[in-house]
Amino acid sequence: MSTPATPRLLEHPAPGEIRLELVLHALSDAVRLRIVSELAAAETELSCSHFVLPVTKSTTTHHFRVLREAGVIRQDYRGTAKLNGLRRTDLDALFPGLLDTVLAAAEAQSARLEPAGA
Amino acid sequence: MSTPATPRLLEHPAPGEIRLELVLHALSDAVRLRIVSELAAAETELSCSHFVLPVTKSTTTHHFRVLREAGVIRQDYRGTAKLNGLRRTDLDALFPGLLDTVLAAAEAQSARLEPAGA
Repeated sequence: MSTPATPRLLEHPAPGEIRLELVLHALSDAVRLRIVSELAAAETELSCSHFVLPVTKSTTTHHFRVLREAGVIRQDYRGTAKLNGLRRTDLDALFPGLLDTVLAAAEAQSARLEPAGA
Repeated sequence: MSTPATPRLLEHPAPGEIRLELVLHALSDAVRLRIVSELAAAETELSCSHFVLPVTKSTTTHHFRVLREAGVIRQDYRGTAKLNGLRRTDLDALFPGLLDTVLAAAEAQSARLEPAGA
């Protein structure tokens, strides 16, 4: 006898629980900044396997978890895939302009440190 | 025979060495955000003793050091006092709008979490 699979739910802070300090900490890492930049550019949910990152799989999982627990991304299971989406609406409401300013700063720094073609 | 005192110089990253990740990490702490907010409001250099913070003196010293090493503040000795100043010009040139956006977010969060009179 089979029972319906229990959906695996991951914990997320409610909008009112999101804290600036944790958001800034979540964004204070090159790999996590890259994940957030890709999600912002995609404007849709992306599976973890979409990202090609220069770290191990367990480190990747850790980075996604830090982003989720800070309230920067939402992670939901769809079947066996874990889909990641930027919580732009929540972040923009709480901290107007913060996400875009950080993303622009990250892009400017990349352009400065890794000239085109490098 | 006395020799002139050697000025104690503290290490600071040059503007081109300042990294977004370290700046965001430096700002990802409530005490350090408060220090930066006070320096921004003062628009002048302030001695460490100016700040009344809910942490020990050695923790305070640590926080100022994190801010200095990230390139967020400049610390200079004037006699026995250590003076702290925000590196606004450098930060605004590297990451336009970042400092003001973070400070506004910190202020909004304080107002939300600590209603007036609390």
